[in-house]
Amino acid sequence: MKLSQKVQDCSLSPMRKYHPFAVDAESCGKKIYHLNIGQPDIPTPPQFFEAVRAYSQQVLSYAASPGMPDLIGAIQRYYRRLGVNYKEEDILVTAGGSEALFMTMLCILDEGSEVIVPEPFYPNYHTFITAAGGKIVPMATYPEENYNYANRERLEALITEKTRAILITNPNNPTGNSLTEKQLRLITKVARDHNLYLVCDEVYREFVYDHDKIFCAGKYRDIDQNIVIIDSVSKRFSSCGARIGMIISRNRELMAQALKFCQGRLCTATLDQIGAAALYSVGPDYFRKVKEEYRRRRDVCYAKLSQIPGVICSEPKGAFYMMAKLPIDNAELFQTWLLTDFEDRGETVMFSPGSGFYATEGKGIDEIRIAYVINEEDLSRAMDLLALAIEQYNNR
Amino acid sequence: MKLSQKVQDCSLSPMRKYHPFAVDAESCGKKIYHLNIGQPDIPTPPQFFEAVRAYSQQVLSYAASPGMPDLIGAIQRYYRRLGVNYKEEDILVTAGGSEALFMTMLCILDEGSEVIVPEPFYPNYHTFITAAGGKIVPMATYPEENYNYANRERLEALITEKTRAILITNPNNPTGNSLTEKQLRLITKVARDHNLYLVCDEVYREFVYDHDKIFCAGKYRDIDQNIVIIDSVSKRFSSCGARIGMIISRNRELMAQALKFCQGRLCTATLDQIGAAALYSVGPDYFRKVKEEYRRRRDVCYAKLSQIPGVICSEPKGAFYMMAKLPIDNAELFQTWLLTDFEDRGETVMFSPGSGFYATEGKGIDEIRIAYVINEEDLSRAMDLLALAIEQYNNR
Repeated sequence: MKLSQKVQDCSLSPMRKYHPFAVDAESCGKKIYHLNIGQPDIPTPPQFFEAVRAYSQQVLSYAASPGMPDLIGAIQRYYRRLGVNYKEEDILVTAGGSEALFMTMLCILDEGSEVIVPEPFYPNYHTFITAAGGKIVPMATYPEENYNYANRERLEALITEKTRAILITNPNNPTGNSLTEKQLRLITKVARDHNLYLVCDEVYREFVYDHDKIFCAGKYRDIDQNIVIIDSVSKRFSSCGARIGMIISRNRELMAQALKFCQGRLCTATLDQIGAAALYSVGPDYFRKVKEEYRRRRDVCYAKLSQIPGVICSEPKGAFYMMAKLPIDNAELFQTWLLTDFEDRGETVMFSPGSGFYATEGKGIDEIRIAYVINEEDLSRAMDLLALAIEQYNNR
Repeated sequence: MKLSQKVQDCSLSPMRKYHPFAVDAESCGKKIYHLNIGQPDIPTPPQFFEAVRAYSQQVLSYAASPGMPDLIGAIQRYYRRLGVNYKEEDILVTAGGSEALFMTMLCILDEGSEVIVPEPFYPNYHTFITAAGGKIVPMATYPEENYNYANRERLEALITEKTRAILITNPNNPTGNSLTEKQLRLITKVARDHNLYLVCDEVYREFVYDHDKIFCAGKYRDIDQNIVIIDSVSKRFSSCGARIGMIISRNRELMAQALKFCQGRLCTATLDQIGAAALYSVGPDYFRKVKEEYRRRRDVCYAKLSQIPGVICSEPKGAFYMMAKLPIDNAELFQTWLLTDFEDRGETVMFSPGSGFYATEGKGIDEIRIAYVINEEDLSRAMDLLALAIEQYNNR
C-alpha cells in the first residue's frame, strides 16, 4: 500500500520518542525527573474548570467554525490591553497553536515553497511545513550570541524566489532567546521588504525575564498583510490539554482562505472554548506570580548547569527552555543510557536530545533542551543527577 | 502575498455559507427551522458531563498523542460488542472524524493522487482531499437506485494508476443510503483486488432503519491492510462539540505514519477525551431510543416530502439525511430567497443546496439535502413551509 512522500518525510517527535524507555524505567520503580516536555506543573486557573462545570445545555453542540464569539471577544480584550487592536474577523480559534500553525502553512505553501526558520527550532514545525508541501530553510544561530536571529544579512542570504515566509518563535522554544523590540522590528522590516509572510509564534509571550515589557508583532501596522500571529492558551494559562489556540492576522485574503479549513473541520471543542474564554479573566497578579516562579526556576537551572564541568550554555531570557552543549559524544545515546542504565538512589532524568531541534544534519548531536517546568527543589536535584550522569557516562 | 493553490481550490462549506443570511433573518425576528446542519437536538448522555465535572487534577495537561488509554479501551470494548477485535495500537484518537479524515488523506495522497468517492458526498471530503494534494474522482449514483454505489463495474471504470483509495460513507451523508453486508463486501473486494485503501466513514453506524444489524467494515480480515475506519462520538452520542473522533486500522505502516501527525499536534483535548470515554458506557437502551426517534422523524420527513407536487426523493435507509430533487430552477437561489424574501407566520426553513455535495459541475442544482435533526412537530411544520415556499417561489 502506498504512503505519501510527505508523511514519510515527517519525523516522530524527538520529545516523545523516549517515551517507551521511560515507561520501562518507571515500571521498574525508577523515578524520572521530566525536563523533556513543555508541560508545566503550574495549576490551571480554576476559572477554566468553573466555566466548564457551569455548562448547562443538554446538547454539546458544534461551535461556530471561526470560534465562539465569547472567546474571540476575550482574546480581543487581552490584545487591547497589550495595545494591539484586533477585529473579530482577525481571529480564528484553532485546536491549539498546532492547528494554527498547520492551517497557516497549508494556506501559504505550495509544493517546494520555502520557510526560513532560525535553528534550533520547535521540531513540530517540520511536520506542519513538510505536510503542507513546503521545506524548512534553517538559519544558523549561535549559543555565543544567545541564539540571536535578528540579523538582516543572514536572513536575506537565505531568501530565494521560493521563500514564502519567515517563521519565528518569540520568546523561543528551545533556546530561551527573547527578542528586544528593536530586534523584532528589524525582522518585520526584512519580511516587509521582501514581501514575505512573517509567522510569529508568540505562545510564550508573557514569559520574559530581563524586562517587563510584553509586546506583540501585531503592533507594527505597516506589515498588516505580512504578519500572522500564532497564539495559544496552553502555556500562558498552563492549560495545554485544552487545545485552544488561534491564528491572528489582518490579512483578509489569508483569513478568508484559512476559514475554509476552519469550516472543513467544523469547529474546535465547545467546552474548551468556554473554559478558555474564562481563562482570560485572570488578573495581572496571576502572570506576575507565574513569571516569578519560572524566573526562579530559570535561575536555579542556569546556575547549576553552568557549574557542571564542560557544559556550555547561556542564560535564557524567555519561555521556559534552554539549550545546553554537554561534554558527551551523543545526546541520544546519553538519554537512552539515562533511562536504561543510570540511576542514583532510584532516580534519573529526562531531557530532549538536541539533534531533533535542527534541520541541518549533524547539528545538535551533543546538545540537549531542558524544559524547566518542575519546582525548584526537583530542578536542583535533576541538575545534580545530570552532573553525576555525565561523569559516570564518560567513565563507563 | 501568495496563497497556496490547494487552499484556493478548497471551498467554503455549503452547509455554512448561508449563515450570514440566517443571522440577518433571525435578527429581524424570523424563526428558522434548521435542517441545514447535522447538529442533532438529542440530549448528550449526562455521563459525558459528569465525567468532565469529576476531573479533579489541578493541571489540565497534555494527553498522550495517540489518545488516552481509558478512551481507547472504551472504544475497543465498543467494537468487541460489534464482533470486531481491535488492538490498542489500531486506534488513534483525533479531533473529530474531521481530523481522522484529513490525517488519513495526508498519509496516503501525493500530489495528483485520486480518491474515488460516490457522488453526492459530504462536502468537507473535498477540503481534506484537496488540502492533502489529491483529487476527488466522483462516481455517479442515482436517486432511482437509492444512491447505491456498490457496483463493481462502475467503480472499476474509474480506477487509474493514480487511484489510491475509495472513500465511502456508510450510512450515507447526504443521501441516507445504507449498505447491506453483501454490498459492503463487494466494495471491500474491489479495494482488495486493486490494492487500494478503502476509507470507510462509519460515523452514522447505529442509524439504520430497515434492519437491526449493525456492522463495521473492520470485520473483513482479508483486507486488514486496505481498510481505514473513520469514526466519531459526534453523531452516535449527540456530542458534536466534543470533537472526538478516531482513525482505526490494522495497517501498521499507515498507523506508524499517522502517529507522526498525532505527535505533531501533540494531543486532542483532555477533558473531551475523558467525557468521550464515559459516553461508551451508555447501554443498548440509549441507542434503541435514539434510533426510534430518528426513524419517526425520517417517516414524517419522507411522508410529507413525497406529497409535495414535483418533488423526487426516495426513502432514506440510514443516517439522518435525505436528498430531494425540487421542482425549482436553482436551490441556491431558492435558499437565499427563503431567508431574505419568504416567510409564513414569521417562519422559514433552511436546507443545504445540493450542488455543494457534487464534484461534477452542474449536478445537484435543483436538489437539497435535508437533515432531519429536529422534533417531529417542527419537522412537519418545516415540510409544510417547504411546500408553501416552492409554490410561492415558482409564482413570484
